[in-house]
Amino acid sequence: MMAYETLRWTGGMDGCLELLDQRKLPHIAEYIRCSSVGQVCEAIRTLAVRGAPAIGVAAAYGMVLALHDAAAKDAATALMAVESAAASLKATRPTAVNLFHAVERMRKCAAAAGQTEGADTDRMREAMLSRAEAIRLEDAGICRRIGLNGERLIPEGGAVLTHCNAGALATAGCGTALAPMFEARKRGRCFSVYVDETRPLFQGARLTAWELMEAGIEATLICDSAAGWLMKQGRIAAVFAGADRIAANGDAANKVGTYSLSILARASGIPFYIAAPSTTFDMAAATGSDIPIEQRDEAEVTSLANIRIAPKGVKVYNPAFDVTDAANITAIITETGVIERPDIARIAAHFGH
Amino acid sequence: MMAYETLRWTGGMDGCLELLDQRKLPHIAEYIRCSSVGQVCEAIRTLAVRGAPAIGVAAAYGMVLALHDAAAKDAATALMAVESAAASLKATRPTAVNLFHAVERMRKCAAAAGQTEGADTDRMREAMLSRAEAIRLEDAGICRRIGLNGERLIPEGGAVLTHCNAGALATAGCGTALAPMFEARKRGRCFSVYVDETRPLFQGARLTAWELMEAGIEATLICDSAAGWLMKQGRIAAVFAGADRIAANGDAANKVGTYSLSILARASGIPFYIAAPSTTFDMAAATGSDIPIEQRDEAEVTSLANIRIAPKGVKVYNPAFDVTDAANITAIITETGVIERPDIARIAAHFGH
Repeated sequence: MMAYETLRWTGGMDGCLELLDQRKLPHIAEYIRCSSVGQVCEAIRTLAVRGAPAIGVAAAYGMVLALHDAAAKDAATALMAVESAAASLKATRPTAVNLFHAVERMRKCAAAAGQTEGADTDRMREAMLSRAEAIRLEDAGICRRIGLNGERLIPEGGAVLTHCNAGALATAGCGTALAPMFEARKRGRCFSVYVDETRPLFQGARLTAWELMEAGIEATLICDSAAGWLMKQGRIAAVFAGADRIAANGDAANKVGTYSLSILARASGIPFYIAAPSTTFDMAAATGSDIPIEQRDEAEVTSLANIRIAPKGVKVYNPAFDVTDAANITAIITETGVIERPDIARIAAHFGH
Repeated sequence: MMAYETLRWTGGMDGCLELLDQRKLPHIAEYIRCSSVGQVCEAIRTLAVRGAPAIGVAAAYGMVLALHDAAAKDAATALMAVESAAASLKATRPTAVNLFHAVERMRKCAAAAGQTEGADTDRMREAMLSRAEAIRLEDAGICRRIGLNGERLIPEGGAVLTHCNAGALATAGCGTALAPMFEARKRGRCFSVYVDETRPLFQGARLTAWELMEAGIEATLICDSAAGWLMKQGRIAAVFAGADRIAANGDAANKVGTYSLSILARASGIPFYIAAPSTTFDMAAATGSDIPIEQRDEAEVTSLANIRIAPKGVKVYNPAFDVTDAANITAIITETGVIERPDIARIAAHFGH
């Protein structure tokens, strides 16, 4: 689909993680090389890599790099480095749960490999790199299945709306919210997509518009505040967004502005879909109020490309995410199927709890 | 209140209109001098002066400049120049009705002056300049009365939210939506204001935040898409917005994003107020669908400070305004009083029709 991979491991066992630097897109397609845990943490924190699934995969590879950092060859020292890496990676961004899942899976993998007879860092590295690669491939498969499960919701000849970037750049595959669009396009369906620019970091304007155009899908860029007006005029057939964490009752955290879109869609009688891997569900969070919301730096709002726009001394409120009530979500599209009118019972039933 | 006037006439009868260049605020406070109708039109079109009431006052002075343009001294030639100026000024921006009102008043003034015994351009200029000054002073009085009528709606210790700039910079006085805040502050009330940055042109970040801070009111800047989330969290006591045109049934056109705020406020049970002079009502527009909505240049959305952010070739939808249903408006605050739950009957009754 895309001419570029969001992230890739190169150089074999002693290699490094390469990340397509999303801060420079769409004008410059440049990879940054991470050969330490610290570099991966910095890349996640500064959004060189972003999108809940992509952050998870990047963190998985980051865990492999913990062993590069460990000077000693014995398994006990390596396991300590792994623990330290896990703590650092988990501290980068609080909202997306995929990060925590991926780190936990890698910790378990390291522990298992470290406890086997004659374990050393080389054996552990081999096991961990193989697990990270599996997580990446698994994510690509999940995206494909989300696309297959959601494509029927894209109307022939109509227009849908999306927020932020939940495309290939947010995953190791073809995306979450955009996956049904790519799949519908592959099947020859004709439709267009209104793209919220997504302040403050313009992931919609920079990343989503670019991805859609690369896939031959008509993209129309709008300011975030024009979305409601488009809906009101009857120009939007459905809204598709991703999610960074979904509570057991279906409340979904996603890029700030998503909650508003869900209310506006409801007011205009428009279906509102969340598309996300099943790993985005956090059953330990009973409702959305249990999901931590990341607050980001004021400068993201007060300045543009290092040019100050707001007056000095102004206060800023800059949450990266908000929470959409399950009651406003028409359906959640996952790789295992579509959960209509999500609530605690239907979600539990879907996942066989 | 403000250290600067939004617009002023200098130099007496042969003088010119000086406009505080709002494109450069808050960092540079610089006046541009308009000594021809064309320059005033350009200033309105490019938003050097903006805000429905301020555009009206600028256009009134623009009509005076028509006589500078007229080479001949006879009244008949001058009246032709006035007609031509009226057409040019009316063609600048379609949505705000105050522009059309002001131009019409100046046309009538010119016609009356031009038809008197011994009329010449000097007499006409005198009459027109005096009328333009009266329109400016009238606007300042209207703003003050909107402030007095609305100040009781600003909650002690609470926070309100506003969109775009409906302050002193949007008028020849202390503003419309911000007037109640300035009045409440003068009375010693303590409250804070969340300010939507207002994409694409950042009137909230650049103008409103600055005005509020200058008046000693705590201002917190947010991305437009965070407003709904603030409301959902119970952090907003009321929403105040201005209007560019209000239909006979109370539907109100204002900066794009206002419609969304009204829906979000209703979803959270928050009062939503429109503050505007009575001249903003257009009784010829039965409902909001009769109000023309200006579409502006794509570059406002695709580029920032001449730096392109969106991919080349992307389509753009950039309406400057949207329409809020009267049913979503708690009350309209005008200089003649507060119209609660506005509808066609209550509006007609308020204005004594």
